[in-house]
Amino acid sequence: NGHCNGVKINGNVPENDNQFLDELYDMMIKEGFEKSRDRNTKVVEFKHPKELKQLIDLEVNKPTDDDRLLNICKDIIKYSVRTGHPRFFNQLFGGLDQYSLGGAWLTETLNTSQYTYEVSPVFTLMEKAILTKMMGYAGFKDGDAIFCPGGSIANMYALNVARYKFFPDVKRLGMQALPKLCILTSEKCHYSIKKAASVLGIGMDNVIPVKADEFGKLIPAEVEANILRLQSEGRRPYLVNVTAGTTVLGAYDPIEPIADICQKYGLWLHVDGAWGGGALISRKTRHLLKGIERADSLTWNPHKMMGAPLQAAAFMTKHKDLLAPCHSANASYLFQQDKFYDVSYDTGDKSIQCGRKVDVLKLWMMWKSRGDLGFEKDIDNLFDCARYLAQKVRDTDGFRLVLENVAPKIKERMTMNGSMLVGYQPDGDRVNFFRMIISNLEITHEDMDFVVNEIDRLGRDL
Amino acid sequence: NGHCNGVKINGNVPENDNQFLDELYDMMIKEGFEKSRDRNTKVVEFKHPKELKQLIDLEVNKPTDDDRLLNICKDIIKYSVRTGHPRFFNQLFGGLDQYSLGGAWLTETLNTSQYTYEVSPVFTLMEKAILTKMMGYAGFKDGDAIFCPGGSIANMYALNVARYKFFPDVKRLGMQALPKLCILTSEKCHYSIKKAASVLGIGMDNVIPVKADEFGKLIPAEVEANILRLQSEGRRPYLVNVTAGTTVLGAYDPIEPIADICQKYGLWLHVDGAWGGGALISRKTRHLLKGIERADSLTWNPHKMMGAPLQAAAFMTKHKDLLAPCHSANASYLFQQDKFYDVSYDTGDKSIQCGRKVDVLKLWMMWKSRGDLGFEKDIDNLFDCARYLAQKVRDTDGFRLVLENVAPKIKERMTMNGSMLVGYQPDGDRVNFFRMIISNLEITHEDMDFVVNEIDRLGRDL
Ligand SMILES: Cc1ncc(COP(=O)(O)O)c(C=O)c1O
Ligand SMILES: Cc1ncc(COP(=O)(O)O)c(C=O)c1O
Repeated sequence: NGHCNGVKINGNVPENDNQFLDELYDMMIKEGFEKSRDRNTKVVEFKHPKELKQLIDLEVNKPTDDDRLLNICKDIIKYSVRTGHPRFFNQLFGGLDQYSLGGAWLTETLNTSQYTYEVSPVFTLMEKAILTKMMGYAGFKDGDAIFCPGGSIANMYALNVARYKFFPDVKRLGMQALPKLCILTSEKCHYSIKKAASVLGIGMDNVIPVKADEFGKLIPAEVEANILRLQSEGRRPYLVNVTAGTTVLGAYDPIEPIADICQKYGLWLHVDGAWGGGALISRKTRHLLKGIERADSLTWNPHKMMGAPLQAAAFMTKHKDLLAPCHSANASYLFQQDKFYDVSYDTGDKSIQCGRKVDVLKLWMMWKSRGDLGFEKDIDNLFDCARYLAQKVRDTDGFRLVLENVAPKIKERMTMNGSMLVGYQPDGDRVNFFRMIISNLEITHEDMDFVVNEIDRLGRDL
Repeated sequence: NGHCNGVKINGNVPENDNQFLDELYDMMIKEGFEKSRDRNTKVVEFKHPKELKQLIDLEVNKPTDDDRLLNICKDIIKYSVRTGHPRFFNQLFGGLDQYSLGGAWLTETLNTSQYTYEVSPVFTLMEKAILTKMMGYAGFKDGDAIFCPGGSIANMYALNVARYKFFPDVKRLGMQALPKLCILTSEKCHYSIKKAASVLGIGMDNVIPVKADEFGKLIPAEVEANILRLQSEGRRPYLVNVTAGTTVLGAYDPIEPIADICQKYGLWLHVDGAWGGGALISRKTRHLLKGIERADSLTWNPHKMMGAPLQAAAFMTKHKDLLAPCHSANASYLFQQDKFYDVSYDTGDKSIQCGRKVDVLKLWMMWKSRGDLGFEKDIDNLFDCARYLAQKVRDTDGFRLVLENVAPKIKERMTMNGSMLVGYQPDGDRVNFFRMIISNLEITHEDMDFVVNEIDRLGRDL
């Protein structure tokens, strides 16, 4: 220490006064972590924007001492939504596992960028290990993968690498050198497919919505009919997007028959498993993605069903040498080829980003603590709770009939109460209904009972 | 507690055993935070990939007890690069400020997504406050802005919203409904401009490199000459990208004369201040971006010059009503218009993402602790150290002549030594040279002396 190979490194040692961080840590544990997991705490202490502005001192122009800053941190915790709370069912993420939280903290402490082995030696290897493992569950034996800032961007990767695979000219010449491309996807797919098509210069009108059945699953015959129609119109469908776990109904599109169609017509098959990909790690649920090994690519967000903190989203493809040629710009300041180590470990040029946050460590920590079987049990618990809830709703009077304006009203009451959070929305012909999301790995049957009773209580007079 | 409006929330309280997190916290402080700031610690304990694989147990299939996991965490810290170390000059980021670190930890503890006020009340207001402040420094009085996962994606936003502004049809119809677009940018610009053009379906060949002068600054007359040439060829230049702080030489392109040209020809002016935008907050350096208020958009990464942890990158535009119409998909499950609060606070549809990590808190914490003047002083220190180093190099014998293979060799030695990290690369006709990055807010003149002496020592026999 203080010497490298006998040479003094020199320099002064900073004074270490960690009182601020120590106090913040205590607060995060007591007010943040512990309370978020305690069912007797409110999920949210809701304030309207105008009120909240008065309650939190956000102005930064003057310096602020540590005590005052810690007080504001307490307010920040108080008025933030407790997404780790077992009664938070509002979004496709949730839970607050101590190992993933620790991994997330450590990531920040080591603050680095994932682009080169040089600045990210451990995380380069770790990303490779975890992605290889995830590709194994998907049956992508010799593929390639990368963490992206969210499933939307992972889906954009799919549209982009598939386009490049069929039309490599697009990289240099743009869309104008190409035929009139289009994409087929279920009418129930996530909106990120449309956003991606617009960003990529394909255009939202060239995302062709295909009919789903009453359970929200894409109908294979409709896919084929649309391919034929589009081809006859001189358009060039090049990708079918299949959703494994739709955003609103949680439906799993049938992969196998659509893989047959893609094979027949030479189309890329992308599976958007942003939400439902987690089902792959349980032997009980992986049948939901039957045929996944036949897909060309997969989006899978461990920050959704698997309970890792935001952001953790993987894009994977079974085509090994595609990400780098599609995205590379060969920047000579970052990806020098005359480095003294094996530069095949530098992953940066596979990405559309430059600096890339380390997303893998928090997931790795969760997985390492549980092992495969532990993670499998967690996923089984989620599906079990969902089944239990469905049965309970069926068994409870008054829960079938949903009236247009009831959900928003109940939502307001539950938010103001802070007792739980569940999202609502319409879906096609269906009027507003509650969308229960089972994502927190620690929820139980009692939590499901609570949901039903609480909606009943809040809506009794409506 | 335990009651909401007199109704028991019910449910069991989890046992709280925070021993794992407590021990991890101690380790992060001692092995991570304190050592990273201690000049007597090595910057890196370098191992080649093959060795490192043997040294860290990355396999996750079996469950692992806390003690073992903590030991591995220690290894993770040991073999990771200390980017917060004052001798880390390798990348356009660095430093490890206790407030931003605390803010980053708190972000993870509150794990939420930035898309709606509903799940992100505090951070919605905070993002608005900080972005409004940053837009103020840029002179964008009535604009709009958003945090993106990195400057590359922020630059992609610029290319996309400008395209939409001139050709709103692109969103629905794609590039094929448009004239033959192209973009002008300095030959020294960051490679993310090319990557973005390729992703957007514009094509890399339609990114027109424009000559820079010997200091790496874009030559305005060359911009105009190229516009005329391209127009005469029937192509449609629509955006000029100007770099405020180039990646390799740190050059600031002259904004004012290029704003005149953009105005004359009706082109969008984007300023890529990913690296150099921080200069705006000091009265001594903001002249480097003279004319910035005339730009249409700006990329500015507080995770670079301002020392916030990755990722913190803002895209801002002076056009108020552009981000949302350009990127919206109006998902009815997330952005319901019948919510009970003021939905104009929901920012999600301005983004190309769906889930969006909270990037603002760590920056807010830094700023709140320092105030404007404190932050200004930090920036002044960086520029002062850079000037001091330049003088020192000029005054030191043997530092002019750079031979082709010297930099990679010295780089290997410094990495193996772990005494410091500086990147190298060629630039046009210039052979490999060291690119010194002054980004850590706490570095001093002594650190600059160390750099010169250390390169001299490591390269003496070459
Ligand atoms: C099916 C599906 N795909 C993609 C996404 C987008 O993922 P992200 O929010 O990480 O961008 C979502 C988000 O809810 C989703 O449900
Ligand atoms: C001038 C410039 N623009 C953009 C970027 C990209 O920023 P990011 O790494 O956050 O994607 C960089 C990165 O070094 C840069 O130097």
